[in-house]
Amino acid sequence: MELPAAPERSFASDNSAGAHPAVLESLARANHGHVIAYGADDATRECEARFRDLFGADVDVQLVYNGTGANILALATMLGSLPGPHHGVVCSSWAHINVDETGAPERVLATKLIDLPAPDAKLVPEQLAELAHLQGVQHHVQPGVVSLTQATELGTLYTADEIAALCDQAHRMGMLVHLDGARIANATAALGGTPAALRSFTIDAGVDALSFGGTKNGLLGAEAVIFLNPLAAVGSAFVRKQVTQLSSKMRFLAAQFNAILDEGLWLDLASHANAMARELYLRTSCIDGVILDGPPAVNSVFPSLPRPAIEPLRDWCFFWDWDESRDQVRWMTAWDTTVDDIERFAEGVRAVLAAPV
Amino acid sequence: MELPAAPERSFASDNSAGAHPAVLESLARANHGHVIAYGADDATRECEARFRDLFGADVDVQLVYNGTGANILALATMLGSLPGPHHGVVCSSWAHINVDETGAPERVLATKLIDLPAPDAKLVPEQLAELAHLQGVQHHVQPGVVSLTQATELGTLYTADEIAALCDQAHRMGMLVHLDGARIANATAALGGTPAALRSFTIDAGVDALSFGGTKNGLLGAEAVIFLNPLAAVGSAFVRKQVTQLSSKMRFLAAQFNAILDEGLWLDLASHANAMARELYLRTSCIDGVILDGPPAVNSVFPSLPRPAIEPLRDWCFFWDWDESRDQVRWMTAWDTTVDDIERFAEGVRAVLAAPV
Amino acid sequence: MELPAAPERSFASDNSAGAHPAVLESLARANHGHVIAYGADDATRECEARFRDLFGADVDVQLVYNGTGANILALATMLGSLPGPHHGVVCSSWAHINVDETGAPERVLATKLIDLPAPDAKLVPEQLAELAHLQGVQHHVQPGVVSLTQATELGTLYTADEIAALCDQAHRMGMLVHLDGARIANATAALGGTPAALRSFTIDAGVDALSFGGTKNGLLGAEAVIFLNPLAAVGSAFVRKQVTQLSSKMRFLAAQFNAILDEGLWLDLASHANAMARELYLRTSCIDGVILDGPPAVNSVFPSLPRPAIEPLRDWCFFWDWDESRDQVRWMTAWDTTVDDIERFAEGVRAVLAAPV
Amino acid sequence: MELPAAPERSFASDNSAGAHPAVLESLARANHGHVIAYGADDATRECEARFRDLFGADVDVQLVYNGTGANILALATMLGSLPGPHHGVVCSSWAHINVDETGAPERVLATKLIDLPAPDAKLVPEQLAELAHLQGVQHHVQPGVVSLTQATELGTLYTADEIAALCDQAHRMGMLVHLDGARIANATAALGGTPAALRSFTIDAGVDALSFGGTKNGLLGAEAVIFLNPLAAVGSAFVRKQVTQLSSKMRFLAAQFNAILDEGLWLDLASHANAMARELYLRTSCIDGVILDGPPAVNSVFPSLPRPAIEPLRDWCFFWDWDESRDQVRWMTAWDTTVDDIERFAEGVRAVLAAPV
Repeated sequence: MELPAAPERSFASDNSAGAHPAVLESLARANHGHVIAYGADDATRECEARFRDLFGADVDVQLVYNGTGANILALATMLGSLPGPHHGVVCSSWAHINVDETGAPERVLATKLIDLPAPDAKLVPEQLAELAHLQGVQHHVQPGVVSLTQATELGTLYTADEIAALCDQAHRMGMLVHLDGARIANATAALGGTPAALRSFTIDAGVDALSFGGTKNGLLGAEAVIFLNPLAAVGSAFVRKQVTQLSSKMRFLAAQFNAILDEGLWLDLASHANAMARELYLRTSCIDGVILDGPPAVNSVFPSLPRPAIEPLRDWCFFWDWDESRDQVRWMTAWDTTVDDIERFAEGVRAVLAAPV
Repeated sequence: MELPAAPERSFASDNSAGAHPAVLESLARANHGHVIAYGADDATRECEARFRDLFGADVDVQLVYNGTGANILALATMLGSLPGPHHGVVCSSWAHINVDETGAPERVLATKLIDLPAPDAKLVPEQLAELAHLQGVQHHVQPGVVSLTQATELGTLYTADEIAALCDQAHRMGMLVHLDGARIANATAALGGTPAALRSFTIDAGVDALSFGGTKNGLLGAEAVIFLNPLAAVGSAFVRKQVTQLSSKMRFLAAQFNAILDEGLWLDLASHANAMARELYLRTSCIDGVILDGPPAVNSVFPSLPRPAIEPLRDWCFFWDWDESRDQVRWMTAWDTTVDDIERFAEGVRAVLAAPV
Repeated sequence: MELPAAPERSFASDNSAGAHPAVLESLARANHGHVIAYGADDATRECEARFRDLFGADVDVQLVYNGTGANILALATMLGSLPGPHHGVVCSSWAHINVDETGAPERVLATKLIDLPAPDAKLVPEQLAELAHLQGVQHHVQPGVVSLTQATELGTLYTADEIAALCDQAHRMGMLVHLDGARIANATAALGGTPAALRSFTIDAGVDALSFGGTKNGLLGAEAVIFLNPLAAVGSAFVRKQVTQLSSKMRFLAAQFNAILDEGLWLDLASHANAMARELYLRTSCIDGVILDGPPAVNSVFPSLPRPAIEPLRDWCFFWDWDESRDQVRWMTAWDTTVDDIERFAEGVRAVLAAPV
Repeated sequence: MELPAAPERSFASDNSAGAHPAVLESLARANHGHVIAYGADDATRECEARFRDLFGADVDVQLVYNGTGANILALATMLGSLPGPHHGVVCSSWAHINVDETGAPERVLATKLIDLPAPDAKLVPEQLAELAHLQGVQHHVQPGVVSLTQATELGTLYTADEIAALCDQAHRMGMLVHLDGARIANATAALGGTPAALRSFTIDAGVDALSFGGTKNGLLGAEAVIFLNPLAAVGSAFVRKQVTQLSSKMRFLAAQFNAILDEGLWLDLASHANAMARELYLRTSCIDGVILDGPPAVNSVFPSLPRPAIEPLRDWCFFWDWDESRDQVRWMTAWDTTVDDIERFAEGVRAVLAAPV
C-alpha cells in the first residue's frame, strides 16, 4: 500500500507534544541568580498570585511535578482534613486514579477507592445518594471524598450545573469534592473559554480542591493543586513533601505556569487543541469505515475502525488502542497540532481504509 | 551443682501466666444462646458501663484482642482526629511501640515514631518543648501524639503530677496524649490502688486515650482502648475494624473484663503481683552477687548477675535477658506468683551463685 | 397478629452462636501453670501438629484472632513473597475483603483490590486470563494474588476441579492463590466431609495459603492461616506481629482449635449447620410468598419475602437484609441450631405471611 | 555597622543556584516534535546509555523528579525485592531520609527506619553487626536495607574501602545497600574526579542501588535511581509510577542529565563547588571568631560564630542555622559560586565580627 508522508506530529497523546516556546523562555528568565529553595522565591509568589487571581479567591496553591502527584496530594490532604482516618475515595470506574496510576492512591493513601459504574465516565448525584447505606456501618469504608474528572477520561464534560449538583449532594452527606483537572484547560476552553467559565464549574460549583493540569497543555512538566476550600487544605505543604512532590528549585515549576497563565495563553493552547480535534473529526468521520459517535467535546476522538486497518495505520502514525473489543482507538490532538497534520493524517486514514484487505 | 526443685511458676513474664478462674467462669456464663455479633450484646454493654463507671465519665470503650492492637487503634484514631495527615508519634526510645512491635505502628499508621532518649523510660515536658523547633517546618514530620507508657517498660512509674505536666505541655503545643497501659493495673495498684488513683494519672491528668491492659493481669487475651477525650475518638469503631481488631463474638472479650472489673479483682491481682515482686527483691537483693538498684515499683526486677551464673539459673527456671552488656536480666511476677515460688527461686539463686565457677 | 414463641436461637449469623462446650473445656485444660508466651507452648505445638496432620503436609500454621486478621496476614505475606512491591489482589466483587472489612486490606496492605464481577461470587479462570493485558504495563497494578472464598459469601461452593483450574491459570500467570475459608468447615462438610475432601480443594488443587475459619464453627474466636506453599510463607511470623495478630497467651487460641480438630468435631459441627439449613429450606420454601432458588449448599438461605412481612418477622426473630432491591434476606444456621428452632421459625414465617397486610 | 555589597550569590544551599546554561540548551534541543510519552523516546534512551557507560555495566536507570522521590523509589524497590514484607531500613540518625523528608519513607514504605548514632554521619560495619541480635526475633523489624549517604549530610565522605566493608557486612547479613547520592558528584570529585572513582565507591564496592543527584549540581530538577544489582531492581518501573515519580514528558528529565553527563560536565561543576568551599574555608577560617574544624571535604563548611554576629550576617547574605546549641551555621557553595562571591562574603564576615557588639 502506498501511503502519503506521515504527519509531523502524531495523535498518540497530548503528552507526546513538547513545551510551548514561551515556557522555555520563562524558564530562562527565572534562571537568574540564587533564590531561597522550596518555594520562597519570586517566581513562585507570582504563580500563586496568578492562581488567586484566576479563581478570584485566596486559594492555597501547591505546585507539583505530575498528575498522579497532584491527585495524591489533593486526596491525601482532603482525607486528612476529615475527622477520622476511616474514609475512602469515591470515583468513576473510568477514573485515572482507579485505572492508570498503578495503585498509587491505594499505596500512598492506604485507603479504598469506591469505584462506581459510569458509561460516559461521569458520576451523577443519585450514585452518591445510594452510598448512604454505607454510612455509619462499621464494616464498610466510609465515603469521604468524591473525585470527579473534568474533562473526563472519555473526553466528555460535566456542565457547571452537573458539578454543582454533585457537590451539593456530596456536601450534604459530609463528603468533600476533588476535581482531577489534568485537562482542565481543555474543559474550560470548551465551556466558555474564560476565567469565569473555569470558576463556574470549580469554585462556584462548590469543588473543594482540584488538580490543575499543565503538562498536557504545553508545559515541560508541572501541575498545581488548588485548594479552594481552606478547611480541606490543612497541612498541604507538609503532605506535598510526604508524597515526594516538593521541588527544591520551585521557581522552575512556577516559571512554567507563569508563562501560560500570562494573557490567557493556557486557554489559547487548549482552545487550539480542541479545535484541532473537531477538525480531525470533520475530516475523518466522513471516511468509509470510520465510526464516530459525534463531534468531540475536547481534544480526543475515539473512532472504531476496521480491525485490519488498525496496525498499518498505527505503524504509519502512532496512536493507542482504546477498547479492543470494539476495535476502538484514541486519536488525540495537542496544543501544537496543525491543520496540515490533520490533512495528512486524514489522507492516510482514507488510503489505508480504501486498500483491499 | 545440686539445685532445689524449681518453682512451679517461672519469672519469665506476666504473659506466661494463665487466666484467673473467675475469667473462665465469666466466659462460661456469657456462653449462652445467640446474641448479635460485633458488640451489640449484653456482656459488651455491661463492660462499657463498667469502664464508664471506673473513669467516672462517658468514655468511648473499644475492646480489642492484644496490646499492639490496642496501641495501634488508639494511635490511628488519635492521628485521624488531628487536622491533616502529617503528624507523627512522639515516644520514649524504650517504648514498646518503638522496640517490640515489629514496626506495626509504622506499617499500619504509615507515620514516623519520633523516639526520644529516656534513661528511665520516662519522658519529661522539656523534651516535648524542644520539639517546637520542628513545628511548622515543612521538611519535618509534625509531632501530633505523645505516647507514654505506665508502668513503663523499665518498671518505673510516672506520678500523676508528672503525667499532668506532660499533658499540659503537649496540649499547649497542639498534641494529644496516649497512655500505653499494658500494665495499668500494676501502676494503679502502686499509686494508691483505687479507681481515684487510676483517674488521677489518666482522665484527671489530661490523657486523651489509653490502652487498658488485661492480658497481663489474668485474662486469656483482651485489652480495651478507652478514649477519654471524645474529640480524639472520632471513628474509633471503624478504625478498630480497619486494623483487624473487631471481634465478631465480642461477648467473649467483654466477659473477660467483666470478671476482673467486678469488685476490684483487677486491682487485687495487680497488687498481688506487685507485692510478689517486692518479696522477690527482698529475698534476692541480699544474695551475694545479685546487684539490684532498689525495690521495684511494680512487678518486675532487673538484677545484674555474675555472667557464669545466668545460663545455669535460666536452665533451671526460665527468664529473659534484659541488657547483656551489663549482665542484666529481668524477673517478672504475675497475678498467680506465690511466696513458695519466690522462696524456691531465691534458694536456687543462692545455690547457683554460691557454686564455684 | 398472633405469633408463636420465637425460636431460642436466631438465624442472624453463625457469629451469633456461642462456643461449643468442648472448647471451653479445652481452655480450662490449657489454663494450667506458666508457659512461654507467643507460641512456644505445648498447646500451640499440638495445634500445629493437628493441622499438619489434617493437610498431610508440613504446612506453616499461624494462629490469629479473627477472619480479617487471617486474610490480611495471608495476603500480606503472599504479596511480600512475590518479587517487587507492585502487586495487587484479585477477587470477586462480592469478596468479604472487598465489601466487609472497612478497607483493612487497602489500609494494611497498601495495595489495590482488583475486584471482578461474579454473579454467584465465584471467579472463573477466563477472568484471570483476561488480566493478562495488565501484565507488564507500568501504569497498572500487577495482579499478584488471587483470593477466592470457599464457601463463598453467597453460600455457593467451588468444586475441587474449579479451584484447581483457577490455581493452574493463576500460577501460569505468575500469581499465587489465597483461599478465604471463613466457612471452610461448611465447605468441607458439603464436599465430602473428610480430610481428603478438604485436601482436594486446597493443597491438592494448588492453593498457596488459606484462612481456616474457626469462630463461625463453634470457637470463641480463633482462626488459622495455613501456608501450604512454603515459598508463599516467608516471614509469616513477623507479619503476624506487624498486623497486630500475635497473641501472647497463644495457648488459648490453640486450645480452641485443639478442641474441634479432635475426632473430627469441626466437621460434625459444620455438617450439622449445613443440615439445619437444608431443613430450614425444606420447611420454608413451601410457604406461600417465600421465594427460594433451590436447596442451600452450606449453612445459609437467601429467601425473597413479601416486603410488608419482613419487619414483623425480623422483630419477632432477628435476621439481616441481603438485597433490599429484591426484598431478599439472609437466614443462617449455626452449629447449635436445633430442629425445634427451625420448626418454630417456619411456623412464624407461615403466620406472618398468612396475615392480611 | 557599615557592610560591603553582598555577594551576588548566597551561601544558603546548592539548591539556591539555578541551572547551568547547557541544561537549558539541552532542553531546547529536546523540545522538538512529538515523542512517545513515559520514556520511550531518544533522549531517555541516550540518558540510560550514558549511565550504563558511566558505571560500565547494564544498570537499570529510573529517572525521577527529586531526591526524596529517588530515595523512596530505590528503597521501595529494594524492600520489595527481599523475600517477605517485614524488613526495615537502617540508616544514620543524620540521614536525610530520617530527618528531612517529613516522614515520606514511613508513609510510602510503611516501614521503620532503624536509625543508628553516627557523630560524623557515617555508619561503620560494627554497627550493622550489632543488629544481628534483632534478626530472627519476631518482635522486631528485620534489618533489610542499609542506606548510606555519600557525601554525608555533614559534608563528610566515606572512602571506597569503607563503603566496601559496609557492603560486605550488610550482604553477609542478608541486607542490601542503598547509597543516597544527592551530592554524589561532589563526592566523586573529591575522591578522584573520574568515572573510575565513582565506580570504586559504588558498583565496585558492592552498592546495590543509588540515588544519583542532579538538582544540586546544576539541573533544574532531575535525579536518577541507578540499580546496580538487578536482583534489587524488580518492578522498578512500576514502583516509580506508584510513588508518583513517573514523568510523562520524560525527555525533559533525560535532557537535563544528558547535558551534564556530556564530557564530564557533572564532575567539572562539582569540582568547582568543592574548590569554592575550600576557598571559603581559607578566607574565613582565619577570621577572629570563626571556629572551623578543618578544610571541607566537599561543598559545605560548618562554622561556629559568635552568637550576636549570626543575625546581622544572615540579614546581609542568607544562610541556614545548623546546630543552634553550638552557634553553628552552614555555608554551602554551588556550581556557580565565584571567587568574587567568596571575597565579598569573607569581607562581610570580617566586618560583622570586628564590629563592637
